[in-house]
Amino acid sequence: MLDAMRSLLGLENVLTGDDAVPWGRDATGKYVGTPRAVLRPFDTAQVSAILAAANDSGTGIVPVSGNTGLNGGAFAEDQIVVSLDRMRKVRDIRPETRLAVVEAGVILSDLHEAAHAEGLSFPMTFGARGSARIGGILATNAGGSNVLRYGNTRDLVLGIEAVMADGRVMNLLTELHKNNTGYDLRHLLIGAEGTLGIITAAVVKLVPRPRAYATATIATGSLADALTLLNRLREASSGAVEAFEYMPDSYISGHLDAIPGAREPFSERHPVTLLTELGATSPKEAEPGPDGEIPLVATLEATLAEAMEDGLVRDATIARSESQRTEMWARREAAAEIAFHKRPFVDTDIALPLDRLQAFFDEVRARLARLDAGATDLAVAHLGDGNIHYTVYPTTDDAALLGQVRDIIDTTSVELGGTFSAEHGIGISKLGPMSRFKDPVALSAMQAIKRALDPKGILNPGKTLPAES
Amino acid sequence: MLDAMRSLLGLENVLTGDDAVPWGRDATGKYVGTPRAVLRPFDTAQVSAILAAANDSGTGIVPVSGNTGLNGGAFAEDQIVVSLDRMRKVRDIRPETRLAVVEAGVILSDLHEAAHAEGLSFPMTFGARGSARIGGILATNAGGSNVLRYGNTRDLVLGIEAVMADGRVMNLLTELHKNNTGYDLRHLLIGAEGTLGIITAAVVKLVPRPRAYATATIATGSLADALTLLNRLREASSGAVEAFEYMPDSYISGHLDAIPGAREPFSERHPVTLLTELGATSPKEAEPGPDGEIPLVATLEATLAEAMEDGLVRDATIARSESQRTEMWARREAAAEIAFHKRPFVDTDIALPLDRLQAFFDEVRARLARLDAGATDLAVAHLGDGNIHYTVYPTTDDAALLGQVRDIIDTTSVELGGTFSAEHGIGISKLGPMSRFKDPVALSAMQAIKRALDPKGILNPGKTLPAES
Repeated sequence: MLDAMRSLLGLENVLTGDDAVPWGRDATGKYVGTPRAVLRPFDTAQVSAILAAANDSGTGIVPVSGNTGLNGGAFAEDQIVVSLDRMRKVRDIRPETRLAVVEAGVILSDLHEAAHAEGLSFPMTFGARGSARIGGILATNAGGSNVLRYGNTRDLVLGIEAVMADGRVMNLLTELHKNNTGYDLRHLLIGAEGTLGIITAAVVKLVPRPRAYATATIATGSLADALTLLNRLREASSGAVEAFEYMPDSYISGHLDAIPGAREPFSERHPVTLLTELGATSPKEAEPGPDGEIPLVATLEATLAEAMEDGLVRDATIARSESQRTEMWARREAAAEIAFHKRPFVDTDIALPLDRLQAFFDEVRARLARLDAGATDLAVAHLGDGNIHYTVYPTTDDAALLGQVRDIIDTTSVELGGTFSAEHGIGISKLGPMSRFKDPVALSAMQAIKRALDPKGILNPGKTLPAES
Repeated sequence: MLDAMRSLLGLENVLTGDDAVPWGRDATGKYVGTPRAVLRPFDTAQVSAILAAANDSGTGIVPVSGNTGLNGGAFAEDQIVVSLDRMRKVRDIRPETRLAVVEAGVILSDLHEAAHAEGLSFPMTFGARGSARIGGILATNAGGSNVLRYGNTRDLVLGIEAVMADGRVMNLLTELHKNNTGYDLRHLLIGAEGTLGIITAAVVKLVPRPRAYATATIATGSLADALTLLNRLREASSGAVEAFEYMPDSYISGHLDAIPGAREPFSERHPVTLLTELGATSPKEAEPGPDGEIPLVATLEATLAEAMEDGLVRDATIARSESQRTEMWARREAAAEIAFHKRPFVDTDIALPLDRLQAFFDEVRARLARLDAGATDLAVAHLGDGNIHYTVYPTTDDAALLGQVRDIIDTTSVELGGTFSAEHGIGISKLGPMSRFKDPVALSAMQAIKRALDPKGILNPGKTLPAES
């Protein structure tokens, strides 16, 4: 097959041996494989030809775009990697209808810049935006820090173009906001991690770029008070809350330990520290009034003042300058450095119903104390989405213990109506919890769909779906 | 099978003969069938037992809830109707987390009332809200008049419970806003018109109920000016535009002809008449200021004034009382009486990219003139969604002519990047356009999924998907 690929793609776009090594190593370093080869198609027709050939020969294909996933979704051992990094055209931007047509290899931050040039924004964003690409973002239905206002990736996609297992190109590149014509195959492929087809392009929604932000660090006595405050802020601002991030006492301590120059957010410690940011999209909300204050900032201030009178809020600081805003975000965005500052650790990506977060912490800590009394933990959360990045530090790095810790976290989350996989997907690292916790009827439906659309099983083999028992 | 059903459901819930007749007739009266029987299960377990028995015996099942569909999706001829009208429990409402768990038989207006009692709203709404039920609304991914702000039905659903073809119950009743655990079967079943499973319950999002409305009737010189105005209104109001409805000159004339007491919207006629409504969800937007004016109304007024100075808007009237608002909506909601006032007619449910609406009207009228020079037309549109209900009045009721007219409308829409089915679904009336216009790769993927999930083809046979060639 590789000779055919060399004539199709050109010698320089069929990589083997040492040239293929970079594609064998993912962002986490946890998954290191040896791809048989890496193919770098330039357009959809080449992806189509690749899959037709792979399907004929029953060759396993692993689609990769930015390779920034955290669960081994792009792991390839003796399989052929199809890298979409050369398909990076923004095919079209239509400011009047607020959409863009982008190829799978477009880097997220490049799409941000292209939208900003039109005074618009593509609101999906997260730490890896400088290297993550649209293909992987769609394949994992990525979340991030603006989901509260703008939704997950799938909520920002109007249409897709995808190459199916047999190489046929499915053109669903619609711009329509209403289009009920059979099963929604767009949503089926988004989040399927390349196991049902390779998404080569998408029509994505753009939104008005906020003209100003209202940002604050807030202390409350409990998660329940924080949730009540979130609802008040959303109502007072007509839904302008873009981020509502939770940092417990242990996170503040971890920040001071791990980050040189880190400062206490408040003169005294509080159980709950929050970072919230509201985005002003209308001139009326963004333009300073006679008193020089931005109206949306005044709304935030008034809502916090009322919440303090009601005893909901214990303390609060509103960012009065871009440097204050930057310091507030730096505290939140240091999460990885803080969480991985100590070893051994077990890190997770769970989500719970908003009103069961405290019950989760109470229950999981009781269970962990019985397993490993000396274990400590660290949490940081996209609180508005119920999405917690919860890290536990066991007293030993015994593999069995680490597994038991992970199991307690996943089990407790699921028992409380939560999930073991919120925004990072399944890949290979979460196949175990998929078998144990996912509704068995749903699992068998997924297996049936996989067999129907990829009968030879060539698309990202071994990912997303557990082997059938 | 019916005897087993009588002992399962009770005699009174297995209807045959004359008792079954009401279920054979749909809201349009276009589709009249003779169900072999009507089964009225009370809960999910009974639906499960029904499908298990039907699958064993290979009996075709037609799921029905409110039976208000327009495309024959609930048509049953010698098949067994499963009516979900007895499954009308609102299982749970959680105001703090803004969601409701509702069964498939809940009437839309009942859910509206249940949400209002909590100061919240379920924003999906349309004319048939007093009889349409959740099951059918999910099965067709219904649209309606608030899609501009709140999205289609699927955008309001967090989780579903469904009974699959073999009777197994798939429990995806999650409340989570982030949950990436395999293929999104929720979105696959929503809009599948009961051909892949019967949705028995759903977790739906609730939103803050608007505290006040800003409503206006507006005249512009062109659709292009109307679209520019829409973007200005959305930006000025931070996305508070809930409705943006288009009524051309011919619609205004039709209104005066068909509706006693109807009045001209303006002293002179304009090419484009618009009805827009903004919803104020925050007290700050809704509470009258010192001048007694509602802030969101002031925003609407200021935006319209600026647009008039710029020549975008030719005239405008803002509703100053509930009775004025009611008169404005009455003009728009008389669409059915106006459109079906003359016969013969061909009515359609198309959608186009927002910036191609005028091109559609120009092209379709040129083609219709060549076919039937005397034909006239009437349009009314959810302009913000690009969704046009376009009715043509041919000069004769010759069946071939009516078919050619429909074909010209569908073809012109598709050629301009639009759809032949925006918000009413496929059912049986749009199987023809599905075969002709839907991407063939997508069609064969849908067929493969149908075979995989309903191998005996018992679920709503003959609907949604054209017979395979």
